[in-house]
Amino acid sequence: MITREAKTNKVVRFYQTGGIEVLKTEEVAIAEPGAGEVRLRIQAVALNRSDAIFREGNYLQSPEFPARLGVDAAAIVEAVGLELQELPDVSHQPAFHRDQGPNRKPIKVGDNVLTLAGFNLSQHGVLGETTILPASFVIPYPNQLTPAEASALLTPFLTSWGALIDYGQMSQGDYVLLTAASSSVGVAALQIIHATGATAIATTRNSAKKQALLDAGADYVIVTSEEDVVSRVKEITNGKGVRLAFDSVAGSGLEAITNVAAQGAQIFIYGALAKEPTITPLWTLMAKELNIRGYSNYEVFSNPERFERGINYLYDGVRNGILKPVIAKEFTFEEVVSALGYMESNEQMGKIVVTF
Amino acid sequence: MITREAKTNKVVRFYQTGGIEVLKTEEVAIAEPGAGEVRLRIQAVALNRSDAIFREGNYLQSPEFPARLGVDAAAIVEAVGLELQELPDVSHQPAFHRDQGPNRKPIKVGDNVLTLAGFNLSQHGVLGETTILPASFVIPYPNQLTPAEASALLTPFLTSWGALIDYGQMSQGDYVLLTAASSSVGVAALQIIHATGATAIATTRNSAKKQALLDAGADYVIVTSEEDVVSRVKEITNGKGVRLAFDSVAGSGLEAITNVAAQGAQIFIYGALAKEPTITPLWTLMAKELNIRGYSNYEVFSNPERFERGINYLYDGVRNGILKPVIAKEFTFEEVVSALGYMESNEQMGKIVVTF
Repeated sequence: MITREAKTNKVVRFYQTGGIEVLKTEEVAIAEPGAGEVRLRIQAVALNRSDAIFREGNYLQSPEFPARLGVDAAAIVEAVGLELQELPDVSHQPAFHRDQGPNRKPIKVGDNVLTLAGFNLSQHGVLGETTILPASFVIPYPNQLTPAEASALLTPFLTSWGALIDYGQMSQGDYVLLTAASSSVGVAALQIIHATGATAIATTRNSAKKQALLDAGADYVIVTSEEDVVSRVKEITNGKGVRLAFDSVAGSGLEAITNVAAQGAQIFIYGALAKEPTITPLWTLMAKELNIRGYSNYEVFSNPERFERGINYLYDGVRNGILKPVIAKEFTFEEVVSALGYMESNEQMGKIVVTF
Repeated sequence: MITREAKTNKVVRFYQTGGIEVLKTEEVAIAEPGAGEVRLRIQAVALNRSDAIFREGNYLQSPEFPARLGVDAAAIVEAVGLELQELPDVSHQPAFHRDQGPNRKPIKVGDNVLTLAGFNLSQHGVLGETTILPASFVIPYPNQLTPAEASALLTPFLTSWGALIDYGQMSQGDYVLLTAASSSVGVAALQIIHATGATAIATTRNSAKKQALLDAGADYVIVTSEEDVVSRVKEITNGKGVRLAFDSVAGSGLEAITNVAAQGAQIFIYGALAKEPTITPLWTLMAKELNIRGYSNYEVFSNPERFERGINYLYDGVRNGILKPVIAKEFTFEEVVSALGYMESNEQMGKIVVTF
């Protein structure tokens, strides 16, 4: 336990791109927040695949060495910059803060907050005992959640919400196909589909995760190594096919997705886990007038109105007990490298969280 | 000239699938229209690529032998079935007819009409001196058009309208990329883009059709064998990229289209002229949140409300002199087989029409 008087703290940094072996836990000085900034005492960090991609040097942002990493944290505000209450420019602040009008509460010491994607990872990465962040990148979270759960909320649920609800306009009666449904985004999608009254059809490569997917909210689970996806989906949907698909695999599986898609269906591709190239099944696309939409959560996090709609949906769902982040496994900060390695093994169901 | 008293007429039929050599011009008896049907005296038939695909046995409908063919005709109503005025079931009739309310005029002998895609081609194909059609598959056309022009109106313009206007919500200031812009659909798209005040960027393989495309309304023409599509489009759009693409080629060209697409752009694929497979550029799709929409005109012709919106747009455009079908070449009925061969050579710009 580090006390408030400590002058240094431990953070994870790396000096070159590579595998988990490049990561170092280092003792560094605790800095003071500047104008418009806050210092966070980190309580929990949810790991993302993008953490690995950033570390490997393949992310949208390139690391500036020595680089920190980590996006999604739950934390307590430990210090605020002097000018925080009178920020001249809030144009980069998410709508959730900016537009609270008379009820807007400035961030203050002791607040329980979540971090929002979009900041400079090398400078502000949250994987450490403290970090400094621009105040526009933190928001309060519902007190129904533990810090570990809270850290696992935003990225999975906002990513799913953006595709299925905001773009896909999912409603009761829709059939939705999910691939890689045991990922944290997949599990969030299962809950959102369930909350909407739509029907979730999850695919999984082997039967190992079948029961866990059913427990997580899947209405049907198709084991692709044992069952034919096309005939099973036709059977489940009475021949109608699925109106929405939420796919992070692509590759050769896209053909089966288009074959089980209903006329005019929307297929969201938000990942490319398949190793082989993805051939576009043009004739099926044209005959059924299918939409293939490349999707990332960037538009959810960067568009203030959309972000606010998403946060309102999520926080209402959490307060009503309908949505709840699923944590696959918790690790201590001392085990952080093992935690990152475990995430990359793809054995988990839900989020890997490092707690402090 | 065949008089009203003639008992037989010439029609094109085929008895097996294949190339243009399977087509025969035959003298057959003129039939009387049944309940809800009309007999048309054909004046002009616009040829479509789907005529060839149907003849080859690769169309959505399979030919029933002996099979007629041909979709788009301008014609005069020569006879109407006895019960036409009191049809019990108009559910299959396009909205343009069904919903004219007090002003609705029943189809009568002497009307100038166009035929609408969707009927049984083997039985009712329009390539012949007369044909019988359900009355729900004919509509009047604006008298500003010659029969040859009228026959070339619906398929090209409704196809372009459906993608660019109805789905794509094209507006002034949009940049639109067109491939295979010398096709009849491409030429119609150029006119619709021009009418909207958007900017049309057409691509063509060699410089042979460059001037013709500029004359047809293209704001910019990129000759792909001589110029780099990506840098040219960046230059033209001041780095913004195109918000809409209307592509009938796909294949390896899709990568360049996604590279010149603006954030959130819509790419309509309505054909697959390329011989090679179409690899989906997943990362560009996700990074820019692009939509690839498989498109056919089926949804325009089969949805009554959409069809009526499209017809109103087209007919207004024709009456105002803004839209006008472009005829590449006219052939006589005696030259019908040459006409089909010429269409399949891809040398033309606009529609091939057979006149009677």
